[in-house]
Amino acid sequence: MNYAIISRVIGRLMLFVGAAMVPSLLIAGIKREADFFAFSTTILLLLILGFSFSFFSKNLSKKSLKIKDALTIVSLGWIVSAGFGALPFTISGVLPNYFDAFFEAVSGFTTTGATVIDNVEILPAGLLFWRSFMHWLGGMGILVLALAIMPTVGVGGFQLFKAESPGPIADKVVPKMKDTAKLLYTAYFGITAIQTILLLFGGMTLYEALIHTFGTVGTGGFSTRNASIGAFNSSYIMVIITIFMVASGVNFSLYYALYKGEIKSFLSNPEFRVYLAIIGVAGLLVTLNIRSIYPDFFSALRHGFFQVSSIMTTTGYGTADFDLWPTFSRMVLFFLMFVGGCAGSTGGSIKVIRIMILFKMFKREVSKLLHPRAMVAIQCNGKLLSTDVIAGVTGFFFLYLMLFAGGALFLSFENISFFSAVSASAACLGNIGPGFEAVGATQTYSFFSTPSKFMLSVLMLFGRLELFTFFALLTPKYWIRD
Amino acid sequence: MNYAIISRVIGRLMLFVGAAMVPSLLIAGIKREADFFAFSTTILLLLILGFSFSFFSKNLSKKSLKIKDALTIVSLGWIVSAGFGALPFTISGVLPNYFDAFFEAVSGFTTTGATVIDNVEILPAGLLFWRSFMHWLGGMGILVLALAIMPTVGVGGFQLFKAESPGPIADKVVPKMKDTAKLLYTAYFGITAIQTILLLFGGMTLYEALIHTFGTVGTGGFSTRNASIGAFNSSYIMVIITIFMVASGVNFSLYYALYKGEIKSFLSNPEFRVYLAIIGVAGLLVTLNIRSIYPDFFSALRHGFFQVSSIMTTTGYGTADFDLWPTFSRMVLFFLMFVGGCAGSTGGSIKVIRIMILFKMFKREVSKLLHPRAMVAIQCNGKLLSTDVIAGVTGFFFLYLMLFAGGALFLSFENISFFSAVSASAACLGNIGPGFEAVGATQTYSFFSTPSKFMLSVLMLFGRLELFTFFALLTPKYWIRD
Repeated sequence: MNYAIISRVIGRLMLFVGAAMVPSLLIAGIKREADFFAFSTTILLLLILGFSFSFFSKNLSKKSLKIKDALTIVSLGWIVSAGFGALPFTISGVLPNYFDAFFEAVSGFTTTGATVIDNVEILPAGLLFWRSFMHWLGGMGILVLALAIMPTVGVGGFQLFKAESPGPIADKVVPKMKDTAKLLYTAYFGITAIQTILLLFGGMTLYEALIHTFGTVGTGGFSTRNASIGAFNSSYIMVIITIFMVASGVNFSLYYALYKGEIKSFLSNPEFRVYLAIIGVAGLLVTLNIRSIYPDFFSALRHGFFQVSSIMTTTGYGTADFDLWPTFSRMVLFFLMFVGGCAGSTGGSIKVIRIMILFKMFKREVSKLLHPRAMVAIQCNGKLLSTDVIAGVTGFFFLYLMLFAGGALFLSFENISFFSAVSASAACLGNIGPGFEAVGATQTYSFFSTPSKFMLSVLMLFGRLELFTFFALLTPKYWIRD
Repeated sequence: MNYAIISRVIGRLMLFVGAAMVPSLLIAGIKREADFFAFSTTILLLLILGFSFSFFSKNLSKKSLKIKDALTIVSLGWIVSAGFGALPFTISGVLPNYFDAFFEAVSGFTTTGATVIDNVEILPAGLLFWRSFMHWLGGMGILVLALAIMPTVGVGGFQLFKAESPGPIADKVVPKMKDTAKLLYTAYFGITAIQTILLLFGGMTLYEALIHTFGTVGTGGFSTRNASIGAFNSSYIMVIITIFMVASGVNFSLYYALYKGEIKSFLSNPEFRVYLAIIGVAGLLVTLNIRSIYPDFFSALRHGFFQVSSIMTTTGYGTADFDLWPTFSRMVLFFLMFVGGCAGSTGGSIKVIRIMILFKMFKREVSKLLHPRAMVAIQCNGKLLSTDVIAGVTGFFFLYLMLFAGGALFLSFENISFFSAVSASAACLGNIGPGFEAVGATQTYSFFSTPSKFMLSVLMLFGRLELFTFFALLTPKYWIRD
């Protein structure tokens, strides 16, 4: 293992996380709130450690990053980011138990949006801002972001990008990795700016607009209010957030196509179309099912589509207590937890493309039954899929469900209801946030025991890094010196 | 399509089902109960139709059975068996709605054991016997049974065997198909005889012993009592049934190995070992979890292992209302619903071997992450698995979960609880029987609407015939003339 490179990248990452806390420090300073001390201490610590690790070893060998190194950097990078991101919560006394703070920070960076804070409205403004800013940083991949805007460390970023970016196939949009990262972040910045401006028009303050934009474009779900988006009681805000949640669940490289004027390739993307179709059908079914609860059809339509988009894109915002909805609507939302956004979006869970590939595999099996000797290739977006990609999708799907089942079993020791346990596991693994019943839209994760909270933090990380990254670290082969 | 052969086989099957009703007719005659008329009418109808179809076309071409024909025969065969098996329930007036009777008969033949009869203890003895005899007939595959003991129809039985027998790979135990069927049925008869005798020792009448043996070895679950096995209040009966449930979830071809004295190959079979390990671990976990509910450890052990074996082997018998157990135990039982017995057993659901293959695929993906160019083959029981088998397992797994989700969504329209809906869907698709809450151990499926009952009947058939058989019939290719 190339410890020199690993230490240098992790050091840079620490400096980056420290820099990312500066806006929160400023807010705390302006507001003269107690979290100022927490942020300044953490930033100082990150500066000292970051510089030490960065210059741990100066004689970097120029050989490219090995897979092992990339896996280590990504796994360690996310743990370090969340580990230090949690400190301000503990130092400020908001979450005295460090495991609570770690849960909150992991939930932030992985864009889950599950919280252990029962009343967020009494939180200091800087801390509340940091909570949501973690969503924004984690949405597109914190390491790729860190490497894209920081001086080069001389390592092959593509390995990192592959390990960190969601979806079965990591596509470079343009030949150079660094350019790809910049293009994706340009789209990300652009969408962030537009949504912030639109929310300002809806009567939000800049502070609130930014926080809810971070929660939306990162598909995170942290809010400034306990009642989430429902607290604003504004159809305009609901519709804007619905549109931007859906937009954030789209593969960001499609926006580059859009930018180049290739509207046709944008609209004809099969994953994008299936993604929209699922939201459309599910939204309509839920709307019809909850119609009688709301005064008029359009009100039901707004709430139905908001909640379907929120769960499907793994954001987790709420405008209504959907735990009061009929079983059918809750069942639809529950199963959407296992779909998620498109590959290359900020959304989590299994991803539409994987569901599509699995569906094609099933179709092939049926046709094989009638023509056993026929060779049928699986296509996706006009390209033939290699058996490697197909096997990867299958392995992922199985592991995802095993982790979901394992998580639910672990949580069932708390003797909460069946639906609470399975939905909490699915909501954390899929980086969604709220589940049902004990972890429903009006509840938090605060009542869980520390072991359960830790296990859920691990699930969130597994989900965000798409499982395999961490599992590779658990194999004996990984630890053999080479 | 070879209509002559299809019609001849279906005709023979009708005669076979009619003959299978004779014991029930005799019981009804001896007891002088009202179901005598129902059975005699149904048998007469089956005789007339059976002979007509059998001799529909005498000039059978001697060409071998095509896949299409085999799929048609198996699908149609099961629908016809259940369709006529349901008649005595309707004619006798026990289940005046034919869809209820169809549900009960499908549940019987598919060895599910879900019932729509709230009080089975007032049922005529002949009908009660028929209900359980269907389990026994369906357990090993009704068509293979029919063809094994009836005069040859000159068709290749292997295609039928493949389409009807459970598991990803249909293994012939001995080169000739007919001999394979006979060997498997010899083991089936043997186990049936031994269990019946052992239950007689436990104080059951011959009638009760037979019925509960049919329910056990077919992994069905119909009982003569509303409280299932709990009604006998006998530790001896509990232990005997536990042992035979576990034995019936084992690949029956292993018993042939045992018979030939190959004890080593019996004990070293990987699927058998994993199957026992899952029962052992799950049984122990449940025992510890329910320990405080029962007066002593051994009582908890008996109930824990009985229920774990009952669900895992997809039998569905009960000795306790496990809906009153803690969430953890119920969660374990719920996830066991997705495992099932070994391939080539009478158990349903996904099957242990498929879970093992999926697990191996996931392990391969992890090691590929570190060594992307390594070619890793997947072995199973010392044999390399072809990519075809692996793709089949994946397709099956995905389709199974899709059907489960679709079934749960459909049932959620009844506005029952989430756990009721998901467990009812899993219990019918996996041919288990009882679920949780509204369909729990002390409940029945009688409250469901007719569309839901019909949908559940379809799920049971899909589950028993391992999904693809029916799906092939839904593809356009199937209907193209050739």
